[in-house]
Amino acid sequence: MLVSELATRIGAELLTQGADIEINQGCALSDADASGISFVSSRKYLPALRATHAGAVILTSELAADAPCACLVVDNPTLAFARALELLHPRAPAPAGWHQSAVVAASAQIHPTASIGALCVIEAGVVIEAGAEIGPHCVIQRDSQIGADTRLVANVTICARSIIGKRVLLHPGAVIGREGFGFARDGERWVRVPQIGRVRLGDDVEVGSNSAVDRGAIGETVIGNGVKIDNLIQIGHNVEVGENTAMAACSGISGSTRIGKNCTIAGAVGMAGHLSIADDVHFTGMAMVTRSFERTGVYSSGIPAMPSADWRRNVARFRHLDEMARRLRRLEEQVAELQQAQPRS
Amino acid sequence: MLVSELATRIGAELLTQGADIEINQGCALSDADASGISFVSSRKYLPALRATHAGAVILTSELAADAPCACLVVDNPTLAFARALELLHPRAPAPAGWHQSAVVAASAQIHPTASIGALCVIEAGVVIEAGAEIGPHCVIQRDSQIGADTRLVANVTICARSIIGKRVLLHPGAVIGREGFGFARDGERWVRVPQIGRVRLGDDVEVGSNSAVDRGAIGETVIGNGVKIDNLIQIGHNVEVGENTAMAACSGISGSTRIGKNCTIAGAVGMAGHLSIADDVHFTGMAMVTRSFERTGVYSSGIPAMPSADWRRNVARFRHLDEMARRLRRLEEQVAELQQAQPRS
Amino acid sequence: MLVSELATRIGAELLTQGADIEINQGCALSDADASGISFVSSRKYLPALRATHAGAVILTSELAADAPCACLVVDNPTLAFARALELLHPRAPAPAGWHQSAVVAASAQIHPTASIGALCVIEAGVVIEAGAEIGPHCVIQRDSQIGADTRLVANVTICARSIIGKRVLLHPGAVIGREGFGFARDGERWVRVPQIGRVRLGDDVEVGSNSAVDRGAIGETVIGNGVKIDNLIQIGHNVEVGENTAMAACSGISGSTRIGKNCTIAGAVGMAGHLSIADDVHFTGMAMVTRSFERTGVYSSGIPAMPSADWRRNVARFRHLDEMARRLRRLEEQVAELQQAQPRS
Repeated sequence: MLVSELATRIGAELLTQGADIEINQGCALSDADASGISFVSSRKYLPALRATHAGAVILTSELAADAPCACLVVDNPTLAFARALELLHPRAPAPAGWHQSAVVAASAQIHPTASIGALCVIEAGVVIEAGAEIGPHCVIQRDSQIGADTRLVANVTICARSIIGKRVLLHPGAVIGREGFGFARDGERWVRVPQIGRVRLGDDVEVGSNSAVDRGAIGETVIGNGVKIDNLIQIGHNVEVGENTAMAACSGISGSTRIGKNCTIAGAVGMAGHLSIADDVHFTGMAMVTRSFERTGVYSSGIPAMPSADWRRNVARFRHLDEMARRLRRLEEQVAELQQAQPRS
Repeated sequence: MLVSELATRIGAELLTQGADIEINQGCALSDADASGISFVSSRKYLPALRATHAGAVILTSELAADAPCACLVVDNPTLAFARALELLHPRAPAPAGWHQSAVVAASAQIHPTASIGALCVIEAGVVIEAGAEIGPHCVIQRDSQIGADTRLVANVTICARSIIGKRVLLHPGAVIGREGFGFARDGERWVRVPQIGRVRLGDDVEVGSNSAVDRGAIGETVIGNGVKIDNLIQIGHNVEVGENTAMAACSGISGSTRIGKNCTIAGAVGMAGHLSIADDVHFTGMAMVTRSFERTGVYSSGIPAMPSADWRRNVARFRHLDEMARRLRRLEEQVAELQQAQPRS
Repeated sequence: MLVSELATRIGAELLTQGADIEINQGCALSDADASGISFVSSRKYLPALRATHAGAVILTSELAADAPCACLVVDNPTLAFARALELLHPRAPAPAGWHQSAVVAASAQIHPTASIGALCVIEAGVVIEAGAEIGPHCVIQRDSQIGADTRLVANVTICARSIIGKRVLLHPGAVIGREGFGFARDGERWVRVPQIGRVRLGDDVEVGSNSAVDRGAIGETVIGNGVKIDNLIQIGHNVEVGENTAMAACSGISGSTRIGKNCTIAGAVGMAGHLSIADDVHFTGMAMVTRSFERTGVYSSGIPAMPSADWRRNVARFRHLDEMARRLRRLEEQVAELQQAQPRS
């Protein structure tokens, strides 16, 4: 693709040096050749920009003077680069229709433009809308709905009665709609409480590999439009996640917690159940969330790694931190007494 | 179902107001109509109870006066509600026999009342007992045994020689009996130690989605009767978990650790290997368990989230906590000297 | 197998007592009979060694005097035991060729000695080398390469364009080459940045159950030769892991972090993105890695579990640790003043 055409299609202003070169791939600044296009999202990459061999680079206007190649000037380089990659590396759509090896129930309603991959199992009452791509080895259990243009990459399990929106992307190993972890005690035994609810994923949701979103115990587990869930994440029953909230890998949200819109939850965050988290709340990695947070802000917890010998000594003191605080208070009182008793000069 | 019949079948005393109404579903207190039954497990739900539109509610006798509807009085409302849900929302059993797409070894012994779902793989020497339901896309590797009335929901992998008890419930993505993480060093290289043991799951065990229970290196990994394991949990080789212990999502138990009976392990708890945990030990969420706990009790660790600016300042101090403790000790000595030197009044 | 033959084949010196006994299985010291062989890796197992009923034991020369049975003396007992287990418990290789139920693209190139299990899906352009074993229910997406003698146990998903080395072992539920978690903001919405890179696993790599290794955003995610990855681990896009590094279960490595060679990363460690970790760095369990570590060493973090009442008090103080440090500093100043003001004796 000519760089001039690419600029037009992603809405960039082209500040070119020399001819209208051809671009055929996206690349990193540091690992590019003249057929590649890269991007700069921050001034900290200026040295890499100056040294790049890319044929073109997407950037903001104030960085253009430093580029040794064609410049595509935009306000949001990362977004423009995403669009350039879509043009340069289009994904081949799966063919419409069913692979002959798929096992499809007679009562399933599958749009003729949808694609059902090899060895899928589509159970009774399932509805799959136009343009959906169900990759190989997926299981969609009874009475679930899959919205238009949604893609299940491969090996995704959708449990019964789940409702999946449009343009959703589900990665291999994701499990949507499992019967959640609900039990009643009967003496020492645990008796399963039937989980009669379901999961509702909004439009443009993404769920990563080996993540699990449990169905509501009663009612629904609701993942709002545009929510992005990374790999190995647990979402308990009746959790609600607001629009455009993003969660990085290895986090777990306990049952009935409600998370607002536009939150970011970094990796390995753990949240207790029945909490309420406001909109625009941001948790840093490995944060331990044991109470509700009703105000927008950035919250953190945890002890960053240090040399083990230091850590052992500090942890030993932490075990007596309350005692230390009491001793500090007593010292303050004693010093105040000493100060009072001191002969005035 | 008439509320009078439901009361009889779950062993509740019916305190009804008006006619013998018909109930056809379980529901939440706050989202119910006259055909629904709900429950109250604690006084904190009294406002929701008073405002409910449910047709009937399961509760203890002291709360009955506050209910605006038919009351089903029991000692353990959560347990009674679980039983009511089973009656009102019975699960349709899978049909006995094999789906024609399943790949079943000739030497597998499958009880005629068992159900083998679409696209399952049942390898040589496998034994599946009466009433077991093997959902679609499960793999049961050679010489494994599946007890009566056990259910594999879908996409469960049972590795070779695993022994699964009766009435076990395994959720999509669970992997039972993987060859565990055992290596010998050979200079800088790691050489796998063959894992010749197996996994034994007791009766009434549950393992959640994308959880893994590794086989014994030698001997067995043993999950006791009634143990409940949530999603995304790792159980290392040769771990033993006592009866009726429950583990919430995202926890990991390292190899050869023994956990007692009736323990509760909240979410994202990590346990080192070769530990011994007594019966009735309870760990709160994200606890870091680095030593054995031989006494019944509740144990915790971790730093709860706080505003990031506060957290950064406190963490910076934590790095010097041992030094702070030494300075505190020196101050105490100095103050004691000052007190001694002080002229008596 | 005669113990004398076993000793020869594992390169051990046989110090036997009595006849040349027959050994037919590996076993634990404490649970052995005369046909079993065990091993001792440390003096702490001396009591178990003295009490064992094993027919033979592998150990170092200085422990031989304590063994009540035939001794196979070596320098590295764990390694020698691994080799003995391979001889005594050989794994039956899967038959070469394709199971008739597998769905194999016409353009896939599969070596005739490779084995393709039941219900596998092998997409277009895939290359599978000699001796590879693809267990049941695996999906290998287009243009991926599987090296010689690599084994996918069952239910493994290899996403498009992944490159898997020789003698690699992938456990059930592993997902290699997922499109990683990369987004650009478009106002409040997240727009996926196409992930055009791939994953490269070196030779002798192992990836555990339900672990995920994401493909590079651009370029590669690289797992070096001999790296061992346990269950439920997340490896983000463009991570690089050096040779022979081992990672225990439940850890997560954020995107673009580079880890050196011969590191050990214990369970549930979390690493932020874009970090650089030197060779021979060791993190203990649940460590929170928020900065680069450029020096060899052992690093730790986290608060070990303690009784919950103590923990609550200490955590309450931690929230004010910075304030405590300031009060300590003020007290030191006040005491210094008092000392100066003190009349000299």
